[in-house]
Amino acid sequence: MARVSQEHLDARRRQILDGAARCFARNGFHATSMQDVLTEVGLSAGAVYRYFRGKEELIGAIASEAFAGIRGAFEEASRATPPPTPDVLLGAVLRLFLEERVEGADRQAFARLIVQVWTETLRNEKLAATLSEGYQGMRAAWTTLVTAYRDSGLLRADVPADHVARTLIAAAQGFIAQQALFGDVTAEVLEDGLRGLMSMSVPGDATAA
Amino acid sequence: MARVSQEHLDARRRQILDGAARCFARNGFHATSMQDVLTEVGLSAGAVYRYFRGKEELIGAIASEAFAGIRGAFEEASRATPPPTPDVLLGAVLRLFLEERVEGADRQAFARLIVQVWTETLRNEKLAATLSEGYQGMRAAWTTLVTAYRDSGLLRADVPADHVARTLIAAAQGFIAQQALFGDVTAEVLEDGLRGLMSMSVPGDATAA
Repeated sequence: MARVSQEHLDARRRQILDGAARCFARNGFHATSMQDVLTEVGLSAGAVYRYFRGKEELIGAIASEAFAGIRGAFEEASRATPPPTPDVLLGAVLRLFLEERVEGADRQAFARLIVQVWTETLRNEKLAATLSEGYQGMRAAWTTLVTAYRDSGLLRADVPADHVARTLIAAAQGFIAQQALFGDVTAEVLEDGLRGLMSMSVPGDATAA
Repeated sequence: MARVSQEHLDARRRQILDGAARCFARNGFHATSMQDVLTEVGLSAGAVYRYFRGKEELIGAIASEAFAGIRGAFEEASRATPPPTPDVLLGAVLRLFLEERVEGADRQAFARLIVQVWTETLRNEKLAATLSEGYQGMRAAWTTLVTAYRDSGLLRADVPADHVARTLIAAAQGFIAQQALFGDVTAEVLEDGLRGLMSMSVPGDATAA
């Protein structure tokens, strides 16, 4: 048997994941069969099953990659000193997310994949665990950052940092949903929106930082 | 033929919608057949098809009702003079949303239904139109309110009201996703989170209201 380089294995894996993503984005996860994926990537069942045992493993790998990408973008953007405010940071992360493409599909496709992953967790415990782990990681990272805002007096001290972290993640998730549904999201909408909220005050509230 | 009262027709329709919601929440939209719905509600095909021609119509009706409910909660909560700030208003809407139950299913079920509706719009144009209409309505209502905040000097004047509106809707959508995925959302998380963001300032920014 010919020896196969790691490079070749990686490229083949990439080819399969990209093809599966195109199928899922086009027709939805449920209406896509493994045969559709084989046809899309032009490989035999034997070649594909060597990497992934089925649709569940494919969508799991796509979800893990998406989280790694979002996490990388967050870490890249949060590295500045002092750390950027949430409008700037979340805007940068969303901008990178919106640039993610499923090649050969429309610009909503990547967001639609993510929303399909959310739906799939309903009946797929392994995928639910992957998603929960990725979410907890983002939540911890944001909580650290919000605590830093608070410690520098940028944010009132009487709200739990975790609640602000979850709200910022929710805003990002909501824009993923809007992009999946309507395809018209830009990072500026989120940046402006957060900047607007940050300029508000709670009337008659003396406890604000 | 016996005459059937409107009350009876409405109760029957309600019974079918509730049963379908339980099935979709439990097993997902795709894995649920019309036969499952018939078994769940204990009615004949003839009785059910008189109201709904299939699964697509059922999920469309569920989506329309959900939007009407959210819209009603928003209008109820925004009626106060002066209008409540976004933390209070969105908290009240989310609180009502979280109280929505699919009877006989767990407390995440209603949120999971909504996320399934988002996924279904990918391949169902009529459902996509229903969702788009509901979303545009919410967006217009929030934009009016944000403009009022701006006019009373509560919010900086240099960001488009529509962008703040979309960001607030995104935060709500994100918490629906978190509730669907993890089932641990309370309205306080959102209220605290928005209150925290509202207390922040953009460092070195002289243009804030």
